[in-house]
Amino acid sequence: MTRLTVPPGSLFGPANLPYGVYSAAGAPPRIGTRYGDHVIDLGLLLGESGPDAVFAEPVLNPFMAQGHDRWIAVRRRIGAAVTGDVPEEAVHPADEVRMLMPFDVADYVDFYASEHHASNLGRLFRPDNPSPLMPNWKHLPVGYHGRAASVVVSGTDITRPCGQRKGPADPAPVFGPSARLDIEAEVGFVVGTGNPMGEPVDVADAGNRIFGAVLFNDWSARDIQAWEYVPLGPNLGKSFASTVSPWVVPLLALDAARVDTPPQEPAVLPYLALDRPWGLDIAVEIEWNGQVVSRPPYAAMYWSPAQMLAHLTVNGAPTRTGDLFASGTISGPARDQRGAFIELTWGGQEPVTVAGEPRAFLRDGDEVVLTATAPGADGTRIGFGEARGRVLPAGKDHRCT
Amino acid sequence: MTRLTVPPGSLFGPANLPYGVYSAAGAPPRIGTRYGDHVIDLGLLLGESGPDAVFAEPVLNPFMAQGHDRWIAVRRRIGAAVTGDVPEEAVHPADEVRMLMPFDVADYVDFYASEHHASNLGRLFRPDNPSPLMPNWKHLPVGYHGRAASVVVSGTDITRPCGQRKGPADPAPVFGPSARLDIEAEVGFVVGTGNPMGEPVDVADAGNRIFGAVLFNDWSARDIQAWEYVPLGPNLGKSFASTVSPWVVPLLALDAARVDTPPQEPAVLPYLALDRPWGLDIAVEIEWNGQVVSRPPYAAMYWSPAQMLAHLTVNGAPTRTGDLFASGTISGPARDQRGAFIELTWGGQEPVTVAGEPRAFLRDGDEVVLTATAPGADGTRIGFGEARGRVLPAGKDHRCT
Repeated sequence: MTRLTVPPGSLFGPANLPYGVYSAAGAPPRIGTRYGDHVIDLGLLLGESGPDAVFAEPVLNPFMAQGHDRWIAVRRRIGAAVTGDVPEEAVHPADEVRMLMPFDVADYVDFYASEHHASNLGRLFRPDNPSPLMPNWKHLPVGYHGRAASVVVSGTDITRPCGQRKGPADPAPVFGPSARLDIEAEVGFVVGTGNPMGEPVDVADAGNRIFGAVLFNDWSARDIQAWEYVPLGPNLGKSFASTVSPWVVPLLALDAARVDTPPQEPAVLPYLALDRPWGLDIAVEIEWNGQVVSRPPYAAMYWSPAQMLAHLTVNGAPTRTGDLFASGTISGPARDQRGAFIELTWGGQEPVTVAGEPRAFLRDGDEVVLTATAPGADGTRIGFGEARGRVLPAGKDHRCT
Repeated sequence: MTRLTVPPGSLFGPANLPYGVYSAAGAPPRIGTRYGDHVIDLGLLLGESGPDAVFAEPVLNPFMAQGHDRWIAVRRRIGAAVTGDVPEEAVHPADEVRMLMPFDVADYVDFYASEHHASNLGRLFRPDNPSPLMPNWKHLPVGYHGRAASVVVSGTDITRPCGQRKGPADPAPVFGPSARLDIEAEVGFVVGTGNPMGEPVDVADAGNRIFGAVLFNDWSARDIQAWEYVPLGPNLGKSFASTVSPWVVPLLALDAARVDTPPQEPAVLPYLALDRPWGLDIAVEIEWNGQVVSRPPYAAMYWSPAQMLAHLTVNGAPTRTGDLFASGTISGPARDQRGAFIELTWGGQEPVTVAGEPRAFLRDGDEVVLTATAPGADGTRIGFGEARGRVLPAGKDHRCT
């Protein structure tokens, strides 16, 4: 047995206790938590019999499906266990394990919940419109379904996608690697217990169903997206990859981060009315080749995750354990708080300087890392780990390059 | 042992041999084929050991994942077995079993592949545009992701969805049951063997990856859809339910139905160029409360399933066993060949007569049944079974009614 300590300033102290899936030395996937600089195996820490058999699974889904009361109880047990005697075989230095995709994604939906982001894109793409926001935007959290199969864990390389694009001067569409590869810094929410078809999630019940949050990079090929998206929305411009951070931060750990969402005016319909603060004071940072280029504040988001889940199901649509819904690009009011490069560089017209060079979109070899912290219950800050991805050149085959 | 016969004119003769999942007398799900008026248990017919263990599974996914060569071999074995001595315990009258969802849906994408449908909707919604088609329409098969969790099998009741809508005269959106509930008659294609991320499906290889086809009703709430869909596409207007027919007709059984797709002009980019006929001469019928109101011809579809799969993956997006992609509404050139009621009734302005009454959208209690037939290899016709759904009133709770 061993005693663990948490270094001062660690983002993974007792107020966090996130859930993830790791592999040590190539062994099969195991469920763990992060404590200080260590990954602690939950099966070895808590046992694997009875309801705890879920800790012998290779993904979090069976545990998440056990529901809110169980999440509370297990969180208490983990908190007590990591401060006591811990079996040595349960402990791995965090930098010696490989983190894997923490859950099987059921359906994936991406929202568009930042007023600053939606307004900026409206000004960029529809400069002649009297209002940058669409008429529906303040009445419902606009969202669309994305590809669950291409959600990958941090560290997975991102191959530049190929596809059709057509600039204003092109007489016909051309085919080739995307020339406007971008990111979107988001927070994703993981559904622990879904709702049956025909039984919408009440907005007051959303907190019992959302298991936790991850960082999310919704890689976007702006040229492919611009050509394809009318009238049915984004598809190939997004579906090639999205990156999640490996640690699912429990919603329970984010209670200290709750703040009011910005005032919603006009008033929302009753099914979207919040009964408690659902804003989250999560401070996100975007690193481009190691340099912080933006600090999007999640607290500025107009629509909250509880409203997203209530809206998503109000027509009777079912959700399932492992459903992932993401916030959409997080942007604050200031320029250096914008969560996508197209917005940060105003469509490429106002480049940012990275390593001394003016830059707008991603080049092969570039690496983007999202990180985030939030207030924890004990006055410390808690972290999300990182959502990291490096851009590889487009494939040489497939008639692309 | 028993000998089976197929009634003259049966749509389930030896040229069909579709795959489905049934339950007899409440027993657990089993995989079967349909032969004449009987459902034949494939585990009992072919055995359940070795590679045939997949026939003891409750869904088709493990069998589909075994790949194209195996699909050919199993189809031959079934064809031989059903014409010989069949174990009596493997045979159930088709009207005595309950058909279940035949496969677990991985990702679901809906296309928009009928030129007649897309043109009609363009004329209806954008009457002032010089062309009813969007500029991208003839260059790529436009599509969007939908909700996999709400794909249900034929016979499942469809509860009228609630949601936001806003008519031109409404000062603000109102909330309530959809007043413009509609259908979309489509054919869906099931991916048997997916492609890894970064390795697009060549259009010439699509036939080796598509396992089979189903009928598909993409129920649509037009008022919810109209208010929500700008700029990211349909979401709640579609996600409440989609109905599939219970029998997956093997693509191998549809070889005799292959016809040329309509000429594609302008020429498509190389990654979408077909090397053989990929049109399918499937004749669809739409029954509204027992009365046939439309006969959409699938042969008129502009974009083929091979092109849909090649496009879906050209950016490197992975597909998986159980991926479902649907054609979008099938409409032919004639009025009574339109596959959605909004189109058939021209936005409600030109009602159709059902049971003596002028009708445009669905009322509670209405039932819609899609059926389809196609030429089979032996000169007979083969069938898809039906995609049936009845409309139930909106839920009384959830602040809806």
